Amino acid sequence: MADIRFFQPSGPFELRYLAEQIGAEAPSAESGNILIRDVGALETAGQGDVSLFCDARYVGTFIESRASVVVTSHELGRHAPSGRCLLFAAEPRLAFARIGHLLYPEARLVPGIDAGAQVHPSAVIGHGSQIDAGAVIERDVSIGENCHIGYHAILGTGVVIGDNCRIGAHAAISNALIGRRVEISCSVTIGGQGFGFVTGPTGLVRVLQLGRVIIGDDVEIGANCAIDRGANGDTEIGAGTVIDNLVQIGHNVRLGRNCVLSGQAGIAGSTTLGDGVMVGGQAAISDHLTIGSGARVAGKSGVMRDVEPGGTVAGYPAVPVRQWHRQTAGLLRLFGRKTADNSGET
Amino acid sequence: MADIRFFQPSGPFELRYLAEQIGAEAPSAESGNILIRDVGALETAGQGDVSLFCDARYVGTFIESRASVVVTSHELGRHAPSGRCLLFAAEPRLAFARIGHLLYPEARLVPGIDAGAQVHPSAVIGHGSQIDAGAVIERDVSIGENCHIGYHAILGTGVVIGDNCRIGAHAAISNALIGRRVEISCSVTIGGQGFGFVTGPTGLVRVLQLGRVIIGDDVEIGANCAIDRGANGDTEIGAGTVIDNLVQIGHNVRLGRNCVLSGQAGIAGSTTLGDGVMVGGQAAISDHLTIGSGARVAGKSGVMRDVEPGGTVAGYPAVPVRQWHRQTAGLLRLFGRKTADNSGET
Amino acid sequence: MADIRFFQPSGPFELRYLAEQIGAEAPSAESGNILIRDVGALETAGQGDVSLFCDARYVGTFIESRASVVVTSHELGRHAPSGRCLLFAAEPRLAFARIGHLLYPEARLVPGIDAGAQVHPSAVIGHGSQIDAGAVIERDVSIGENCHIGYHAILGTGVVIGDNCRIGAHAAISNALIGRRVEISCSVTIGGQGFGFVTGPTGLVRVLQLGRVIIGDDVEIGANCAIDRGANGDTEIGAGTVIDNLVQIGHNVRLGRNCVLSGQAGIAGSTTLGDGVMVGGQAAISDHLTIGSGARVAGKSGVMRDVEPGGTVAGYPAVPVRQWHRQTAGLLRLFGRKTADNSGET
Repeated sequence: MADIRFFQPSGPFELRYLAEQIGAEAPSAESGNILIRDVGALETAGQGDVSLFCDARYVGTFIESRASVVVTSHELGRHAPSGRCLLFAAEPRLAFARIGHLLYPEARLVPGIDAGAQVHPSAVIGHGSQIDAGAVIERDVSIGENCHIGYHAILGTGVVIGDNCRIGAHAAISNALIGRRVEISCSVTIGGQGFGFVTGPTGLVRVLQLGRVIIGDDVEIGANCAIDRGANGDTEIGAGTVIDNLVQIGHNVRLGRNCVLSGQAGIAGSTTLGDGVMVGGQAAISDHLTIGSGARVAGKSGVMRDVEPGGTVAGYPAVPVRQWHRQTAGLLRLFGRKTADNSGET
Repeated sequence: MADIRFFQPSGPFELRYLAEQIGAEAPSAESGNILIRDVGALETAGQGDVSLFCDARYVGTFIESRASVVVTSHELGRHAPSGRCLLFAAEPRLAFARIGHLLYPEARLVPGIDAGAQVHPSAVIGHGSQIDAGAVIERDVSIGENCHIGYHAILGTGVVIGDNCRIGAHAAISNALIGRRVEISCSVTIGGQGFGFVTGPTGLVRVLQLGRVIIGDDVEIGANCAIDRGANGDTEIGAGTVIDNLVQIGHNVRLGRNCVLSGQAGIAGSTTLGDGVMVGGQAAISDHLTIGSGARVAGKSGVMRDVEPGGTVAGYPAVPVRQWHRQTAGLLRLFGRKTADNSGET
Repeated sequence: MADIRFFQPSGPFELRYLAEQIGAEAPSAESGNILIRDVGALETAGQGDVSLFCDARYVGTFIESRASVVVTSHELGRHAPSGRCLLFAAEPRLAFARIGHLLYPEARLVPGIDAGAQVHPSAVIGHGSQIDAGAVIERDVSIGENCHIGYHAILGTGVVIGDNCRIGAHAAISNALIGRRVEISCSVTIGGQGFGFVTGPTGLVRVLQLGRVIIGDDVEIGANCAIDRGANGDTEIGAGTVIDNLVQIGHNVRLGRNCVLSGQAGIAGSTTLGDGVMVGGQAAISDHLTIGSGARVAGKSGVMRDVEPGGTVAGYPAVPVRQWHRQTAGLLRLFGRKTADNSGET
């Protein structure tokens, strides 16, 4: 059960209603009346809680769970003791996530502009949007409906934000066009100058950075990320792409749709990722590369060459993941001691 | 000598007083009267300064030092020229650090709430605490005594902060319970959503993040770090753990007591570190791993398997450090040129 | 052409004027009258635009370009169709960058202190400087002429900023002396405590950090970086050095002049870099090392030993780059499959 100081469930809801909302199979008439108040793990859930069983390894926990309802698949549901109330869904994890969002909807906005915010008269702010204290909305900014602009967030001249966006505290956004339902976390910097220089007689001279950052719908960007604007042309983040904390996106990078970039990953300038690319934590991708759609880049790897669509690479320099496994196993064989284990040796 | 624009020593103090305060051996009656005004390195210290000699390599510098007093051990003190005033301590480095804090205590707080801060009427703020301009204290926040909440820092609804904490400028803290004597640096984000998604028919759906961040006593967190709250259960930072700048801590990570995480390290979701684990700079630890107490993870390494208590690992993928040394030496042997040196070759 | 919501060219200018300003060869009398309004890529530039041709691979694009003027070298200019207006420069990239800055000068400052800023009466602010809302200027701060202190930026007690500096929104600067024409991006933290501890009986005790951060002229620091002050002595960033986003600089690091540090690089405490050192993205350099002038550190590498002046290193642990290439090629040979390609294998 969540700490009610931070999270208050909005229910209770009848199971029938939840099932209908998320597109799960309709429960029986009887169980449809069960009142659901909260979500919980199989071990800790009790009366009024809905839980999730989606991994056969936890069948024992499932059998002993005291949850009022368990979301699962027909396949896994076979293990249920008789009388157990189940909610069947083709994708149990997805169904459970959706129930969670029904029970814990986002905090309702308090529309209006806080007296401590600074909004330029030329800015347009859509109906239902909330602008917190310390926020700065500069000239010609356009903010859609039902947006939340957090404390001290800065939206620079001309920035466009679509409907239903959330901009975190201390974010600083300039030279950017942002779609709908975009969530940008705290202390994110978007639209800064790219890192491009030419050498002059007395030092480095910055190359003019005249591009923008274009962010598609449904993008999420984690805390303390930095996304530079394009130099010539734009930096682009495709719709549905999600980015974890402390990620660096260089100028003129183009990320496709539904990419997943984990924490502290870095994409150097002018590199293009297709759709659905997954990049592990602390992975780095060099500049001017093309990473094909559906490719996977292992955490911590350093990619220095293009990756084909659907390819999986790992290592530094990154190679196809099987090659990498052969290399790491081979090194262990070549230089290992018989007594070596994986961790205890010092 | 420190730049007095930034640091003003609070003394002078008699050596007798300092020795007593830090638990060093009492100086002789005569030397106990020496007035100490500042700390300094052996090379630069002069009259009124106390210095540190703790490494036999610098015996020459020690002998020639003009410091009024030198903190050292009996072992090293043997090298002193006659007449040199020494302060003996079992742990000279520790003793010297403590003298430093006596000479340069933290800036005294100016209790009260700046007119430019925004404090919700339901918030409770302990005696002696200082709330700077631009700070935002939301509903039901509880702040202990003698805390300093820096400029523009945000404490979200329900956050609890123990006594004697320092929260840096531009920090954004939500969904967190924080102990005593915790120091959080500038632009740190704590309590944001973890990075967990399930795939839906039209894109990724975020997994509900209903946990908190629990931070123990005496924790220090460096600038621009990001620490996500738990998804189901909490993210925990054990008492006495210190974290350098730009570190990423994923959701449901549990760090034990007295861990040391160096700059830009990253710990992925649901990984557990025992007590006293040391993690080098830019090291990454994958998700759902267990790193035993007292383990050491070398800088830059990528840990993909559990590490036993007391183990030391290095490399990517991380292996026991001796194994790693054999591998790196072996590679050099296998593929090196006789003329290769470590750095000059281009 | 740049998006005029974000970028407005200041021209038009006669080509004669631009050529003179940047030190290019004087154009012919006739072409000197051409009015230049904008910069553009060879493919997209049209009438009134100046473009750049500096890479022989794009000769076809050059020949077909509709730009009014193309900056190039005599060598490459030979490929021009007759009648094409060219501007010759010894360093075409540099000349083009300079034309860009003439057409798009930095936004003019609005001198004065915003009513929402908080400036200590003892602070000195030079003529022509602009202090934005939410900025905090503490006691005894000195700011030069024509500086821009962004929204919510914090300048701590005693900080000195030279003329013509730009301090980004949400930057937090303490214990620092900063030169002229320095540009610090958003959410940068400068002058925080270094990461140094000694072990005491009940946990770690911080080593006093009494140094400063000294930043030379013409330095640029990217978004969300963290630069710690020295412990004993200073952290120094040499004149003309440029630092990308999310870079970590430990205490007592000394960077020479005209160094280039790419995104997410990290330099551990007390390491010294000479002049003109180039450090790739996500590279890490261990503490207490010396990296000679002109050295290059490949992206993602982990440097654990000194590097000689002019040396180039790569890998983890970093070795001379040719050695690294032999190792990576050798591993592929030793453990590769004949059918393996670089990316398609999964």
